[in-house]
Amino acid sequence: MSYTEIKRLFRSPDEYIGKTITVPGWVRTVRDSKTFGFIELNDGTFFKNLQVVFEDGKLDNFKEITKLSVGSSIEVEGELVETPNAKQPFELKAKRILVESFCPADYQLQKKRHSFEFLRTISHLRPRTNTFSAVFRVRSLAAFAIHKFFNERGFVYVHTPLITGSDCEGAGQMFRVTTLDMKNPPRQKEGDIDYSKDFFEKETSLTVSGQLTGEAYALAFKNIYTFGPTFRAENSNTARHAAEFWMIEPEIAFADLKDDMILAEEMLKYVINYVLENAPEEMQFFNSFVDKGLLERLANVVNSDFAHITYTEAIEILEKNKDKFEYPVEWGVDLQTEHERYITEQVYKKPVFVTDYPKEIKAFYMRVNDDNKTVAAMDLLVPGVGEIIGGSQREERLDTLEKRMDEMGLNKEDYQWYIDLRKYGGTKHAGFGLGFERAIMYLTGITNIRDVIPFPRTTGSCEF
Amino acid sequence: MSYTEIKRLFRSPDEYIGKTITVPGWVRTVRDSKTFGFIELNDGTFFKNLQVVFEDGKLDNFKEITKLSVGSSIEVEGELVETPNAKQPFELKAKRILVESFCPADYQLQKKRHSFEFLRTISHLRPRTNTFSAVFRVRSLAAFAIHKFFNERGFVYVHTPLITGSDCEGAGQMFRVTTLDMKNPPRQKEGDIDYSKDFFEKETSLTVSGQLTGEAYALAFKNIYTFGPTFRAENSNTARHAAEFWMIEPEIAFADLKDDMILAEEMLKYVINYVLENAPEEMQFFNSFVDKGLLERLANVVNSDFAHITYTEAIEILEKNKDKFEYPVEWGVDLQTEHERYITEQVYKKPVFVTDYPKEIKAFYMRVNDDNKTVAAMDLLVPGVGEIIGGSQREERLDTLEKRMDEMGLNKEDYQWYIDLRKYGGTKHAGFGLGFERAIMYLTGITNIRDVIPFPRTTGSCEF
Repeated sequence: MSYTEIKRLFRSPDEYIGKTITVPGWVRTVRDSKTFGFIELNDGTFFKNLQVVFEDGKLDNFKEITKLSVGSSIEVEGELVETPNAKQPFELKAKRILVESFCPADYQLQKKRHSFEFLRTISHLRPRTNTFSAVFRVRSLAAFAIHKFFNERGFVYVHTPLITGSDCEGAGQMFRVTTLDMKNPPRQKEGDIDYSKDFFEKETSLTVSGQLTGEAYALAFKNIYTFGPTFRAENSNTARHAAEFWMIEPEIAFADLKDDMILAEEMLKYVINYVLENAPEEMQFFNSFVDKGLLERLANVVNSDFAHITYTEAIEILEKNKDKFEYPVEWGVDLQTEHERYITEQVYKKPVFVTDYPKEIKAFYMRVNDDNKTVAAMDLLVPGVGEIIGGSQREERLDTLEKRMDEMGLNKEDYQWYIDLRKYGGTKHAGFGLGFERAIMYLTGITNIRDVIPFPRTTGSCEF
Repeated sequence: MSYTEIKRLFRSPDEYIGKTITVPGWVRTVRDSKTFGFIELNDGTFFKNLQVVFEDGKLDNFKEITKLSVGSSIEVEGELVETPNAKQPFELKAKRILVESFCPADYQLQKKRHSFEFLRTISHLRPRTNTFSAVFRVRSLAAFAIHKFFNERGFVYVHTPLITGSDCEGAGQMFRVTTLDMKNPPRQKEGDIDYSKDFFEKETSLTVSGQLTGEAYALAFKNIYTFGPTFRAENSNTARHAAEFWMIEPEIAFADLKDDMILAEEMLKYVINYVLENAPEEMQFFNSFVDKGLLERLANVVNSDFAHITYTEAIEILEKNKDKFEYPVEWGVDLQTEHERYITEQVYKKPVFVTDYPKEIKAFYMRVNDDNKTVAAMDLLVPGVGEIIGGSQREERLDTLEKRMDEMGLNKEDYQWYIDLRKYGGTKHAGFGLGFERAIMYLTGITNIRDVIPFPRTTGSCEF
């Protein structure tokens, strides 16, 4: 059977007007009078529906079609005709409508507004709604934009491992991965678990970041990125935290913090532009129904040169306005979302890179600046969200890295292979991380992370 | 600093000949006589090295440069000049060489052959070798080719979940995911583990397939695919099994087994063509040093129309040649690799789809054929490997699906959401799975799965 997709009709109508085509899809609504009726048909390839018109006398099964229920799957053969005076540009005049399945009346997606909370309970059906079809098409396009961006620049895509034997990545609580019998695990004499009997013959967990292994590949390929799932076993039941989410982590060698920021700015603009160009209907929908200022905010990001400011300068600005904040501000503290948003929304009114944070509040692998007080780190703050990207130049000096690890009480033996990367062919390098779901929330205006993940995993919730 | 990448020099030499450029990279070899020397420089962007020539009197640090060791990182400024009578098309005449780091003499990647087994023990360094730089660049390009293929066809990329609460996917042994204290887990009165105290308040594992959740999305978007990690906790210490690997699982609605096979054939040819076009140096290398017949075999795949044969026909052929096989053949048994390879290599000499397998040896979700003995399944067999893709049309008939689940002793309550997909807007649909590592082995001629995964996870092994 040769089917035509609804997306093709909307993108290249001239190819199809006047022709007889067959379109399968799902019924979104049916309206009928005695002798004719209309079906809004959606086939999943396009945000908008195709209007099907059917008439008594022209169909064998006119009666059956008038009784079609929302959600039913059908196949329509007909002629595509222009409708110059109507809301929609064309309609399909049905010659034959084949019903593949009637949808029963207890179908939960009847034509009415449903709360996002309710729709989360039917995550297997919600991509059939306008909002979620838009969210998950944008998610797909944004993912492709990221791959395309890095591919065009010759970056090597690296699948860093998810199961890790190192519990020292330090970015958060981890999930244990095991095949041991939980009820009667093998034990050592002292009663401790005998992990030498586990699948990997050691304790293993789910990774919180691909950065460290990514660095090994950057020091072979120069420019690499990862794009894969990461995990946090943190008990934070907020709208911004999920236990399983996707991250993008580029890593560039022979490059410093400045190169890192240029890359982050180019990438973010590229992804926004790609989605605006390739999902105009969806983005218009978000702007109208989810977040009124969305398109203006994104246009502002794309068209502005991002600002640059040091952490020390940021603290000075914030201290002058300290009565505006709930959390206190002084040199040495980490910035809270309210501080970040103040700087990007009120002071600069555009995206801002904040650089050179106190070394005490940043990770051991970030390069120590000459002042020995700050590190070559950067956070990108964007209006409406706060931090969206965090990165740094990495400490490439073997002695400085080892000193930092000692200071922070890390066991260097666990990191021997990572130290090797400095010892053998080490070079300046830098990288950053972008939480993919945060980016999708930013692109769509959706405010709960559960609504941008197909089947979200959060504290106490792992359905489907 | 404005650097030039070695890939650019080889792809567009005319832009750079006669110009002064700066190229950073890692030293692969150094040769020198009293007054001049050569460095083979690799920057990770290209398979081949750039030849750097340096002369006494033209460099401040000639002595230092003659002592450069393999693996050191340097930055060379110089003029790119043509070398019409030499092996390489051009060389970089150094005006200045900055040493970023000297590599110590105990560096394990000295210029000599290393066994793949040894290189696995230094997975953090092996991408710097010719073989592994080729493998992992091809892996990256193949991944992009897959995204590009589906993007061009309007498929929605779905991130199906990795942590799952369902232990009934049925495709293999699973890893448990938990945050419980293994030593003193909370217990119910009878001594059983109290999983209501676990992170997700239930038992959870790592997924073995994204298919079932992928189907939910196909029944909203028509055409979708997944491309993400999957896991098997199987104790199989073979060259073809890993505990963590990546899978591609497209799912298409309003489509049957024939459409499914067309898609699989197009995808495989597309990926092979993309890699041949975009990594010619790497593919030539594999053909010369890893697998002599590789390019011929791949060309044969790209240029042939894949054959189609039913399982029943395959059994007839195999029974006539049963003395050739170790494993017995009769209608009802699953095909072994030796049988698959015989059919594709000896009988057809090209890729073959085998369809319509006995329902007893296939999964519950495959569509039962009218004979009520076979299901609409397909395996794609390719020369040199055997099965590389497995797929099926899915059972869309609610009553037949439920009957099959009863027959196989599955608990329908666990699958209620999956059954919903048939009840509400169900339609014919189909899909398949391609193990990404198997595909990379096929593309490169590499025979051990540990050598196509950056940091492999296998029974008893989870290093780095």
